[in-house]
Amino acid sequence: MQALKKVRTVRLPLWVALSTLLALAAAPSRADADAHAGKPAEPYDYANPMIGTGGEGHTYPGATVPFGLVQLSPDTSNRIFKGNFTECCYAWAAGYRYEDPVILGFSHTHFSGTGHSDFGDLLIMPTTGALHLQAGNDTEPGYRSHYSHADEVAQPGYYAVGLKDYGIRAEMSASTRVGVHRYTFPQSDQAHIVIDLTHAIYNTEDKVLWSSLRVVDNQTITGYRMTNGWAKFKPIYFAIKFSRPFDSFGMVREDTHRYGRMPRSKEEAIAANEISTAPEQQGRALKAYVDFKTTAGEQVVLKVGISYVSPDGALKNLAAEVPDFDFDRVRAEAKQKWRTELNKFDVRGTPENMSMFYTSLYHSVLGPVVYNDVDGNYRGLDQNIHHSDHPTYTIFSLWDTYRALHPLFTYIETDKVADMITSMLEHYQQSPVHMLPIWAFHGNETGTMIGYHAVSVIADAYVKGLRGFDAELAYQAVTDTANRRDFAGLDSYIDRGYVAYDLQNEASSKTAEYAYDDFAIAQFAKALGKQADYEHYLKRSQNYRNVFDAKVGFMRGRMSDGSWETPFDPELAQKHSAFTEGSSMQYSWYVPHDVAKLIELMGGKQQFVKRLDQLFDTEVSKDKVQEQEDISGLIGQYVQGNEPSHHIAYLYDYAGQPWRTQERIHQVMQTMYFSRPDGLPGNDDIGQMSAWYIFSAMGFYPVAPNDLTYEIGTPRVDHATMKLSGGKQFTMTAHHLSEKNFYVDHVLLNGKPLDRSYIEHKDIAAGGTLEFFMRATPNKSWASGAASLPPSMSDAQH
Amino acid sequence: MQALKKVRTVRLPLWVALSTLLALAAAPSRADADAHAGKPAEPYDYANPMIGTGGEGHTYPGATVPFGLVQLSPDTSNRIFKGNFTECCYAWAAGYRYEDPVILGFSHTHFSGTGHSDFGDLLIMPTTGALHLQAGNDTEPGYRSHYSHADEVAQPGYYAVGLKDYGIRAEMSASTRVGVHRYTFPQSDQAHIVIDLTHAIYNTEDKVLWSSLRVVDNQTITGYRMTNGWAKFKPIYFAIKFSRPFDSFGMVREDTHRYGRMPRSKEEAIAANEISTAPEQQGRALKAYVDFKTTAGEQVVLKVGISYVSPDGALKNLAAEVPDFDFDRVRAEAKQKWRTELNKFDVRGTPENMSMFYTSLYHSVLGPVVYNDVDGNYRGLDQNIHHSDHPTYTIFSLWDTYRALHPLFTYIETDKVADMITSMLEHYQQSPVHMLPIWAFHGNETGTMIGYHAVSVIADAYVKGLRGFDAELAYQAVTDTANRRDFAGLDSYIDRGYVAYDLQNEASSKTAEYAYDDFAIAQFAKALGKQADYEHYLKRSQNYRNVFDAKVGFMRGRMSDGSWETPFDPELAQKHSAFTEGSSMQYSWYVPHDVAKLIELMGGKQQFVKRLDQLFDTEVSKDKVQEQEDISGLIGQYVQGNEPSHHIAYLYDYAGQPWRTQERIHQVMQTMYFSRPDGLPGNDDIGQMSAWYIFSAMGFYPVAPNDLTYEIGTPRVDHATMKLSGGKQFTMTAHHLSEKNFYVDHVLLNGKPLDRSYIEHKDIAAGGTLEFFMRATPNKSWASGAASLPPSMSDAQH
Repeated sequence: MQALKKVRTVRLPLWVALSTLLALAAAPSRADADAHAGKPAEPYDYANPMIGTGGEGHTYPGATVPFGLVQLSPDTSNRIFKGNFTECCYAWAAGYRYEDPVILGFSHTHFSGTGHSDFGDLLIMPTTGALHLQAGNDTEPGYRSHYSHADEVAQPGYYAVGLKDYGIRAEMSASTRVGVHRYTFPQSDQAHIVIDLTHAIYNTEDKVLWSSLRVVDNQTITGYRMTNGWAKFKPIYFAIKFSRPFDSFGMVREDTHRYGRMPRSKEEAIAANEISTAPEQQGRALKAYVDFKTTAGEQVVLKVGISYVSPDGALKNLAAEVPDFDFDRVRAEAKQKWRTELNKFDVRGTPENMSMFYTSLYHSVLGPVVYNDVDGNYRGLDQNIHHSDHPTYTIFSLWDTYRALHPLFTYIETDKVADMITSMLEHYQQSPVHMLPIWAFHGNETGTMIGYHAVSVIADAYVKGLRGFDAELAYQAVTDTANRRDFAGLDSYIDRGYVAYDLQNEASSKTAEYAYDDFAIAQFAKALGKQADYEHYLKRSQNYRNVFDAKVGFMRGRMSDGSWETPFDPELAQKHSAFTEGSSMQYSWYVPHDVAKLIELMGGKQQFVKRLDQLFDTEVSKDKVQEQEDISGLIGQYVQGNEPSHHIAYLYDYAGQPWRTQERIHQVMQTMYFSRPDGLPGNDDIGQMSAWYIFSAMGFYPVAPNDLTYEIGTPRVDHATMKLSGGKQFTMTAHHLSEKNFYVDHVLLNGKPLDRSYIEHKDIAAGGTLEFFMRATPNKSWASGAASLPPSMSDAQH
Repeated sequence: MQALKKVRTVRLPLWVALSTLLALAAAPSRADADAHAGKPAEPYDYANPMIGTGGEGHTYPGATVPFGLVQLSPDTSNRIFKGNFTECCYAWAAGYRYEDPVILGFSHTHFSGTGHSDFGDLLIMPTTGALHLQAGNDTEPGYRSHYSHADEVAQPGYYAVGLKDYGIRAEMSASTRVGVHRYTFPQSDQAHIVIDLTHAIYNTEDKVLWSSLRVVDNQTITGYRMTNGWAKFKPIYFAIKFSRPFDSFGMVREDTHRYGRMPRSKEEAIAANEISTAPEQQGRALKAYVDFKTTAGEQVVLKVGISYVSPDGALKNLAAEVPDFDFDRVRAEAKQKWRTELNKFDVRGTPENMSMFYTSLYHSVLGPVVYNDVDGNYRGLDQNIHHSDHPTYTIFSLWDTYRALHPLFTYIETDKVADMITSMLEHYQQSPVHMLPIWAFHGNETGTMIGYHAVSVIADAYVKGLRGFDAELAYQAVTDTANRRDFAGLDSYIDRGYVAYDLQNEASSKTAEYAYDDFAIAQFAKALGKQADYEHYLKRSQNYRNVFDAKVGFMRGRMSDGSWETPFDPELAQKHSAFTEGSSMQYSWYVPHDVAKLIELMGGKQQFVKRLDQLFDTEVSKDKVQEQEDISGLIGQYVQGNEPSHHIAYLYDYAGQPWRTQERIHQVMQTMYFSRPDGLPGNDDIGQMSAWYIFSAMGFYPVAPNDLTYEIGTPRVDHATMKLSGGKQFTMTAHHLSEKNFYVDHVLLNGKPLDRSYIEHKDIAAGGTLEFFMRATPNKSWASGAASLPPSMSDAQH
């Protein structure tokens, strides 16, 4: 999703584009040479955290482990909100932009690929020479440093960069809850490590509500800060241990508001600052530094435990996960975790496509993240400290990730799915509105985006046979969520069968998405043997029809009196319209669970295909996209860069023209995914953009999770074996695949001809083989018959 | 103590003075008649929470139990700090002032008798008619109400008042962690209960860092707020249960700073407000209301659990302490707790003096307060949640209370002393500076005032034979505290033998108080058999001499080069002087542990007495008291209203002129303690002012806790039996006592003549009788010999 962002285009300067090409031309060359000399490349070598750090990918290059709580990564901006998030923040949602020439420091928490953002907690920066506690800028000196991409290494679980201004090599790695820094200093009488608690992503003047720093001893600093950002209230606690004692330390408090004084300007506050050597400071704007005298090449290791419970929680996490200061061991362990993760696929293809595939897999497991401390404690949505015996997960960007990421998890992260669902159920139990998460992270519900897609994730897992969570509680949660009348037009939806546009913005996209979610509930009810509920929710899943104006052939805003939004322009994409981050042009295709009926509503298969072509082939006039989210990755009005389009190219299949799906999918993968920093078509959105690629590159995609089918597109790699969590393997082979041979001639499933344009969940789950035979021209006879409609469509034909 | 306050005099308007006299003329008539009809008066009936609510007593009239975490009391001011705490706050340190004509509401936390303050958390107010969410003022309507003292009842554990503007009777009572309200409404279609989380004592525009309100169901609201005030960071959590469902509710958020918007003025924020009926709101400025339709006389009971751990902690406290809505039972239980407490003394005297005595006893057990939840959890100084199996105490106003309050506890609260000390040791263990509390409350160290008097409290308990705490840990804590070199001039004190005035403000008062505290450590060391330490600290206890300029006969600021502060005027009392809340005139007497040497330094007994008389008999020119704390309760330059003077009147004893002590003490008790709202000579300071009265009214006072002696003054009541915690009794009888007969003729201790002006701790601890025979003229021969120096003085004569 790309909430709250504005139209914005980032053009890379030429030097960046060139250095990018040089650095990344042939994956896996960007991996540092030492680690791989003489060894054959493995999946780990193909995953490149730099991909997505330019353009609008919004990924970060730093160190993390799969589903890790800590994302230790460089930040390159400290812009502050001055009334418009686009100007200060949107492009820096992951803290780092590839084209930025300076690094401010390394902070411990980041989102991977979001539009709106938060985090950037606990910025740490090593420096030498005169002490600076301001980041600095082009005219004022500061702790920031220039760097060069030639000096930069980004690998899964490892990040390194040379800080040119200081001659310091900074390396970092991580375990689940601990970030580890290793700084190699030059000889210096004035080496410093600066800690800036005022730095944040999507920062505002008043984001930090309160913070604290405590120098426990000359190798330990603990603290916390509480922020009000996208997360309304997020306290983070930390414990920093230094591998050697620091010689001295100081803290400053740049608060503009201090108890017992009248407010002053930030400039006055900074000017009035005095360094304190008291071992504890509290305030709204704290910074600290420690000093060393270093010999040439001296290394200082910092390990930083993070907790959302307490300083003690952070210390416990630190002690449990990184008991010593052996940076290389932490790095090796992180690498091993990544190898285990990335080896879940055995892929062969061009280096470029292998890099895209494994990087997509890398990006797919950066969220949700483990949230509870090693002792099982975590801070709930209700500000109580709860205990879970299982890993508790957070970061649920569900409007994005219900589509392909969570379905992917049902195969390769089966062991984690139940814990993720249980975490969502705990959220439900702690929720003031008794709802499952919408867009939730770290004990907060942001309520961002639309739908109640947690139900899709839960139902999808259940109907696929995954267990290990309380199914009855889950069903209660799902139906409570779907019937919370005061939520985003649900009362109108329940009473009228649609969300009335005079009552709610984005009313028709809400109606369409609620309808899909209701289809998911119906499947869940059916699996639980709740026949009446099944019928009830299946009926509700038809509600999308109430906002589809058959006369004009489009979804359209509909008023509470039943009349249609007037005037109506399906291409108009603007704020407060009847649609979310797009226009009716895109949203009219949002009937993933009932495409057969949609074809009928659109006037039959021929008209349906014509309309699809219209979407892909017609550009929209710029003046129709006002005040609207960035629509990146465009083919006509198809928007690969944003989620509502993700299933659309697969819809040709349903009209009996799978070769058209093949053309479009090939075009998308060929022209929008590149193994370079700006190589993603849009925000990666906690892995949804990447999960789309993983499925699509294997040749199939879950248009409607919960209908248990995957529409066939066109593979992008020659071979891909997916190693299912249970031990089985599903292998895709694409014979004769090339940039020209992207059309499917025929398909064998487990050696038998497949004459339909979809496969079923059970085919994958059972393990087996899927063989594509590719060619350079369309085979219009393959899978063009009526049988191409998946069986679940009959469900929806109610 | 009276830190941070300025010279200020409150004159009661005539009508208040009159109504006071009417209401309180003859204690115990202010007790509500029903409860006592026909019964003989008991101690409970004499304790009057209204005493101290006028003048500068800074006590509150509301409902609490002994050592209770909740103090549910009316607040009469919502003044906001605009650069000067004197103007907004000092007079309203307890939230309520007797002369104020309106009540804003009832908040749940208050200090008893402090100068600086905090708290006023969770203001609740019942109203009828048009809903107002602003308190209002003389021109703008609001939720506040007029009231009359005639309609007001204040008893230990019970407070009631008629809210004239609404015809509502508001009653409240409390258990340790729960406040209970009972509102009797008139018939109304528009009855409301307003919750204002922006209200606070010593309020500032930005005091509330963050807050939250959650309507759990139509009888339950939970929430929290975090404030930055005198306590740097204090989160309070609460849970409110209503005895009947409310019909509707709403919340507003008057934040001037909101994420994603530019700051606006408070007026704009209020104007822009919309009532939300979502069940949860978070922000910096939250208010909520609930609505009822009430019948005439309908009662709504609210019970409010408080926790400093979590919302669940508040719910647990609520469930454990007040499981139902039986207000009368809660009130009866509170009364019973108070009877048990007040019955620890059996006193006979004039109604006025009995009222003063029992009210003093009431005020003496309002702090420290129990801090942990019923499950033992509490939030420590390190922001971790700790667990204690014992009751954890907080509110340590030690500069005040080490003098007489804690010594009093060693007799009548023996069971609690060990828990208080253990709580101080936990503070030490959680402290960033590894120190015992200075002025600490609710997980915060304010660092207010001087000295490290926790050592006196701990040592006093130990040398009196009290056990039940970890003595070795306590000794470690005591000596760590006394050797924290970066604390308030301790480095200079340790290195030079005094705190240099060019390095530290209030340097000579610090030196003198550290010296006394070191005397306490010496006694503790001796009791532990640490002979070398005993000698070391006894030597340190002589450091006061280093700031006593024998040439001028006064304590005086001394520079780091050894030279004296010049020019020097012993009467000058100003900020940043060498003395704390006073001048050298008062502080030169601060050698409680070595009075014999002080006499010598002053030039012998005659000169010593002359100097004492000079203090009492000479007024200071007003222009010498600049920028200085309020000095109330004056006799010449003797200041009964502030602690540094508390022992001075007893010093005549040491010079062999106990009749002069008798005169002065009689004068103080007769002219400065009155059974009326403005009846206290100064801030009650968490009971120190009252504990002074309790000891003095019994005829003796601990000039130097830890020397195990009590100087004899003159009793104020005819009879006082103190029931020691262990079961023994110590009985004081004053024969022939009257306003004229305040001189001591002779004294019998356990029936035997006592020819010295002190008694010893062991005399009290063993139980026994002390008989005074009073007369109208001085008996200059009684206790005038050298034997009047207590034995511990020989200790100090080192």
